[in-house]
Amino acid sequence: MSKIGDYQNVIKIYDTTLRDGTQGAGVCLSADDKVKIALRLDKMGFHYIEGGWPGSNPKDMEFFKRIKQHQLKHSVITAFGSTCRPGVAPAEDVNLNSLLEAGVQATAIFGKAWDFHVTKALNTTLEENLRMVRESVAYLKRHGLTVFFDAEHFFDGFKANAAYALSVLRAAAQAGADALVLCDTNGGSLPQEIYEAVTRVAQEMPGLELGIHAHNDGEMAVANTIMAVQAGVTQVQGTVNGLGERCGNANLCSVIPNLTFKMGYQTVPRENLVYLTELSRYVYEQANLSPVANQPYVGESAFAHKGGMHVSALLKEHGTYEHLAPELVGNTRRVLMSELAGISNLLYKYKELNLDKNSPEGRQVLEQLKNLEHRGYQFEAAEGSLELMLRKAMNGYQEPFQLASMRLILEMREQQPIHSEAVIKLRVGDEVVHTAAEGNGPVNALDNALRKALETFYPEVAKMRLSDYKVRVLEEKVGTEAQVRVLIETGNGQKTWGTVGVSTNIIEASWQALADSMAYGLLPENKI
Amino acid sequence: MSKIGDYQNVIKIYDTTLRDGTQGAGVCLSADDKVKIALRLDKMGFHYIEGGWPGSNPKDMEFFKRIKQHQLKHSVITAFGSTCRPGVAPAEDVNLNSLLEAGVQATAIFGKAWDFHVTKALNTTLEENLRMVRESVAYLKRHGLTVFFDAEHFFDGFKANAAYALSVLRAAAQAGADALVLCDTNGGSLPQEIYEAVTRVAQEMPGLELGIHAHNDGEMAVANTIMAVQAGVTQVQGTVNGLGERCGNANLCSVIPNLTFKMGYQTVPRENLVYLTELSRYVYEQANLSPVANQPYVGESAFAHKGGMHVSALLKEHGTYEHLAPELVGNTRRVLMSELAGISNLLYKYKELNLDKNSPEGRQVLEQLKNLEHRGYQFEAAEGSLELMLRKAMNGYQEPFQLASMRLILEMREQQPIHSEAVIKLRVGDEVVHTAAEGNGPVNALDNALRKALETFYPEVAKMRLSDYKVRVLEEKVGTEAQVRVLIETGNGQKTWGTVGVSTNIIEASWQALADSMAYGLLPENKI
Repeated sequence: MSKIGDYQNVIKIYDTTLRDGTQGAGVCLSADDKVKIALRLDKMGFHYIEGGWPGSNPKDMEFFKRIKQHQLKHSVITAFGSTCRPGVAPAEDVNLNSLLEAGVQATAIFGKAWDFHVTKALNTTLEENLRMVRESVAYLKRHGLTVFFDAEHFFDGFKANAAYALSVLRAAAQAGADALVLCDTNGGSLPQEIYEAVTRVAQEMPGLELGIHAHNDGEMAVANTIMAVQAGVTQVQGTVNGLGERCGNANLCSVIPNLTFKMGYQTVPRENLVYLTELSRYVYEQANLSPVANQPYVGESAFAHKGGMHVSALLKEHGTYEHLAPELVGNTRRVLMSELAGISNLLYKYKELNLDKNSPEGRQVLEQLKNLEHRGYQFEAAEGSLELMLRKAMNGYQEPFQLASMRLILEMREQQPIHSEAVIKLRVGDEVVHTAAEGNGPVNALDNALRKALETFYPEVAKMRLSDYKVRVLEEKVGTEAQVRVLIETGNGQKTWGTVGVSTNIIEASWQALADSMAYGLLPENKI
Repeated sequence: MSKIGDYQNVIKIYDTTLRDGTQGAGVCLSADDKVKIALRLDKMGFHYIEGGWPGSNPKDMEFFKRIKQHQLKHSVITAFGSTCRPGVAPAEDVNLNSLLEAGVQATAIFGKAWDFHVTKALNTTLEENLRMVRESVAYLKRHGLTVFFDAEHFFDGFKANAAYALSVLRAAAQAGADALVLCDTNGGSLPQEIYEAVTRVAQEMPGLELGIHAHNDGEMAVANTIMAVQAGVTQVQGTVNGLGERCGNANLCSVIPNLTFKMGYQTVPRENLVYLTELSRYVYEQANLSPVANQPYVGESAFAHKGGMHVSALLKEHGTYEHLAPELVGNTRRVLMSELAGISNLLYKYKELNLDKNSPEGRQVLEQLKNLEHRGYQFEAAEGSLELMLRKAMNGYQEPFQLASMRLILEMREQQPIHSEAVIKLRVGDEVVHTAAEGNGPVNALDNALRKALETFYPEVAKMRLSDYKVRVLEEKVGTEAQVRVLIETGNGQKTWGTVGVSTNIIEASWQALADSMAYGLLPENKI
């Protein structure tokens, strides 16, 4: 782990996707989602992961409990909170004490740096606010914690009353804060203002570690972050994909490659940046948000070329119309009008299965794949379905079962819960099995009936567990008639695999993904 | 109409939504769409509207023909093209002549400013490129046109070979160009680089009008545009919503309010900026794209507040957590409900409905809300359900209908599609209605049956349309038995509202959200 101040040219990445990111409209992560994302961030080599605000809700406290069961390689988990309240001593402050209860090594606490906020929002005096900052930082330091002080509204405060804003920073510094993080909380500052204010702070407080926390309300969070680094900050706060309240936080998926490739700073290990695109999409998936196609660096269209002239120049020399080689951030070049998506992935799979891409079977699968992707299938998280498709194209694959018929009946009377029943008829080899099951909802009933039908033939089905079930409405405009994509993740204790189904009917899409998940688990090499 | 150089502090807005904007993946505008958008841009007071590249496709030529039938108030229509080709005289160049045929007063032609591009992409000499620039500008000037020279890749060229990049600008200036537009074509430049390069150009070529054309590949197009203005440019090019190739162009919906409200420049008439949000959504609609909720200034969530602490401060003073009053750009403040929200978010809603928070009803709703949120309900996108809950707690609310029973039957045989049928029995006042409908999937069948049952009693149901249907699996660990949340958005042509349902059964969750969506639309004040 990098320690503070170890290297001159290291910019430390402080991620707040799990805290400030969840303030975004429509962003909601369970404690479990948060753990999964934290493990990815650690793998990328982020320096700090702000896990939540333990004082504000039980879900965040749950995260801090669960993440302790994991050994992290790179990241320090931090807990977020505020200074003590006016008129309250730190030791008596519930919120501050919950930071101690979170059991972390590092904390970030925010305090007001804008005089207007102290008097208007906090309803207290400027002097009392300094006391709160000073004593809160000192209290946490006495408990052996690393303490970052987030100076809320610093830039607005600096414009309104620079002397007071600086005195707040000084109070935190004198109490032992490990870094002073300058926050553009309302997100409306201009790059030049940020540069000048940070320059002044760096002059007034030499030798102190400074950080930047920018919001995107003026569409300049990334630029403001870069300018702050140029003026001397060494810790940058932000979120994956720029998730966050209102217009979001500084987008780390842009900040990191800008700092690394364009400005030559050390951020996360350079070789990890090839996973940046994957990280971006992973976080979108976990938050159940649609990826933004034109997002810089990691978007599906970030390196998509449409203009014929650009394309012909690109064929000669990639640098002509690309600011960066897409491979550096794990993205790919796309030439629109020729749907090339997924082919490189596919060629890789071909290799694994010894399938010749120029054979009739090879070409048939390629055509089929293009068709399915066009209809909304997505194989990135569904390698199980992809491999089954390849195997079906090759000789010698025998489907373990086929659906003859299926019926689902759901009934509800008055305020009673819905009763769900599935009736299913399968062909397994030469035999026919006809059975029924109930369930908690239609998909669960179907899942139960399918397992019941298969268990006599394939006892290993009992070991397979669905670990994830995701639904995404593809074209939201069409209401309840829209195309729906279902992604299912299944595990058998040794490995996990994803499968996919797409239909305007959620039951049909679920059936496709369910059937694939069983068929893939029954491949000879997956038996345990 | 503003003329070039009329005022010291005017920044001229040059829109290229209709040309560069259509290079974006998935952006496709008919000649008719383009005319409609151009009329809106004119009404807003944009100075220039780049209508297309008449030499490149017949659709663009069609636009120039049609737009002439309209009397524009503010905007000058410009046509885009390139310099003549290597070894060709301007008078012989088809592309240049098509600019004359477009019948416009103003043109923008691009030429190469990066030596690498001249030799690699154009395959010609540096001297020949200067000839092409000089003669092309002079040719169009001789035909009485305003000529803007777009220096393609200027910033990359300036970094690689400043002397040559400047000599290209000089060639255009000496031939009579009315403005020199510095283009960051690959979109990878940093704000400080832009500032320094523009400063140098302004020093070398005093008295010349300069422009900026920025792309967003480093997520800094807006900031780069602002920095260029600070260094002396007076024409800014960009697109509505930042549409454009790859990661898009500088977003005028952010550039304009930044320049106007934060930097004090004259751009479009200030009073027109209240239509900015409407313009943004209009362009999304015409391009058939979903609006970006967290887009700065004009996004649905740009002024949405979720954190309880923020909301309690906002109630005291709007400026505390807003960088700008949303009314200035025609947007509105939203208060989101969620588990992060303290009580204050709800109090904001109470105020709207004149409900006393200390009354038994007020406290009852608060308890109910906490319970529901704990179970996975999310009210931030479901204000309809929230308001129904508040009204149910208040006296005098009469439910428009109640469910007596419901049955759904889904059947599939062999490879046939699933057949979905819903049977529904409702109580409406003293009457009972019992009916059935088919649909494309279970939820659609249920939706159809519900509408059919209600239409005789409430004909306005026919005007309500589901515009969005979202499914989120809440606790993914449990597979197909997981809790599911359904969010539905409904509109009646005048307003739209969101409703929510949560259950382990997707059908039950969908039913709750569907029933709420109808009940909310049937409130007396929502009738149209």
